[in-house]
Amino acid sequence: MAVDELQYVPKVEARARARKQLGRIGVLTPHFTADSFVDRLRGIASVLDGLPYELVVYDITTRAQRDRHLATMALTNQVDGLIVIGLPFDDDVAARFMASGMAIVQLMTKTQPFSHRVSSIVVDDGQAGRMAAEHLLSRGHRTVGFVGGMAPPDTANTFGLANLDGFRQALALAGIPLPDAYVSLAPFSLENAREQAHRLLDLPDRPTAIYAASDTQAIGVLSAARQRGLSVPSDLAVIGFDDIEIAEFIGLSTIGQPLKESGRRAVEFLLDQMADPTRAIERVDLPLTLHSRLTT
Amino acid sequence: MAVDELQYVPKVEARARARKQLGRIGVLTPHFTADSFVDRLRGIASVLDGLPYELVVYDITTRAQRDRHLATMALTNQVDGLIVIGLPFDDDVAARFMASGMAIVQLMTKTQPFSHRVSSIVVDDGQAGRMAAEHLLSRGHRTVGFVGGMAPPDTANTFGLANLDGFRQALALAGIPLPDAYVSLAPFSLENAREQAHRLLDLPDRPTAIYAASDTQAIGVLSAARQRGLSVPSDLAVIGFDDIEIAEFIGLSTIGQPLKESGRRAVEFLLDQMADPTRAIERVDLPLTLHSRLTT
Repeated sequence: MAVDELQYVPKVEARARARKQLGRIGVLTPHFTADSFVDRLRGIASVLDGLPYELVVYDITTRAQRDRHLATMALTNQVDGLIVIGLPFDDDVAARFMASGMAIVQLMTKTQPFSHRVSSIVVDDGQAGRMAAEHLLSRGHRTVGFVGGMAPPDTANTFGLANLDGFRQALALAGIPLPDAYVSLAPFSLENAREQAHRLLDLPDRPTAIYAASDTQAIGVLSAARQRGLSVPSDLAVIGFDDIEIAEFIGLSTIGQPLKESGRRAVEFLLDQMADPTRAIERVDLPLTLHSRLTT
Repeated sequence: MAVDELQYVPKVEARARARKQLGRIGVLTPHFTADSFVDRLRGIASVLDGLPYELVVYDITTRAQRDRHLATMALTNQVDGLIVIGLPFDDDVAARFMASGMAIVQLMTKTQPFSHRVSSIVVDDGQAGRMAAEHLLSRGHRTVGFVGGMAPPDTANTFGLANLDGFRQALALAGIPLPDAYVSLAPFSLENAREQAHRLLDLPDRPTAIYAASDTQAIGVLSAARQRGLSVPSDLAVIGFDDIEIAEFIGLSTIGQPLKESGRRAVEFLLDQMADPTRAIERVDLPLTLHSRLTT
């Protein structure tokens, strides 16, 4: 099926021109109120500000919603172009969008299922885990913990453990084990992250450092440390992932991904495609940066 | 015009039933990535989770966009019901929505122009300012500053100064002046708030306490204090407004408004209206609560 769709290019162009009349860009995202998604949306909105496009965000929670949207959005005339954030995607879905002439860009982690037939912006969360481990090792930590997310059943997005795998790999290379008791996974929330940290800090040989798979969760960990009277970083070092906007303002050490920049690039790819539907597929792998601030 | 529209009720019911087929709730909001809006969206999403409605967020930036949406959304069949957050609204607009049979709820501050013909959820930001002043006075502060927002030109929402007015009033009642040099207004951002705080802290007789008109801005103020080596709260007390989700986790003192609850109530009002378009107009005034934590 996929190859046949490529024959539709002239039709695609005609439809793309017709679609332009809507002046509407869509974003399909699960958990759109998580801080990292909000920062990506800020990047998207910053490019559209001043352009004759309005931004419409579709909040996707269940798998059924996700599948329905991916099946129908190419056919219904709701938006001129679509940015899909953090949702798995395959070649069949990609082919449907290409056939319809709707511009589409994916923004996801490296280990999520995705299609090479659509332009994409990719973050390597396994690399983030490795960088966090290397930073904590370089600070002399030998007993470390991991606070991460876990997808509830029937959730729209897949929740990779690449971040944890990378963290564990880099520790193993240094001869440091990460026993299961030092790994806490729970559905994403500040409250859960604080409880997860308390559980790790209750261990008889408690960790001297915790890597949280997001800055939001790292803020939960910092709150647990304060509740226990632990000084950060001398009693407990904390590092997050994302570099959300407030991270710098609260002095949080983190592995940064350029969240706003990724939103900006996504919408730029989309506008390029809308201007020229025959444009080559592009892929950007986002750079990651260690920000060592006050918490490590 | 307004009164005539009330004759349309039977037509309204028929249309409301037809609209239900969309299964789509819209939110019209400016600055949808500001933390307080995100918390309201979290409340809205929490009610819709599990219901057969999808949530669509329209990001409104300019006045032209706002006016176009308010003029056309009642006529175009895009959503079954609409929550309008922080946008001025009048009886003409309200009448248009009532005539179309589209359910609508407003969520705004007390001093924004709004229509009594539409159900609304209202926060009294003047009261927030008074409560912040009273708290700082009770802590013994006599030289205080204010860090607040300012709308850029051509922005969609009005940006009231009720918060500042309430703050100033309560100080005046206690015989404490708030000279203009101690009031800093700038477009809403963390960066700006940090700079605004630095400007106040550069004053020869520097404030011993700062009230920021949002928690986000308060985080900017805290960052400025840290950059200057000031201890919080002994050298500088900081209080915010909103009680965004992370406020408790970072120990920020704040005047809390029930953000998530307001989103929940808004969508409940909307669903009630959609079920019964003849339902009486409702209004909720949100309670405010002082949360005295680590920063005052």
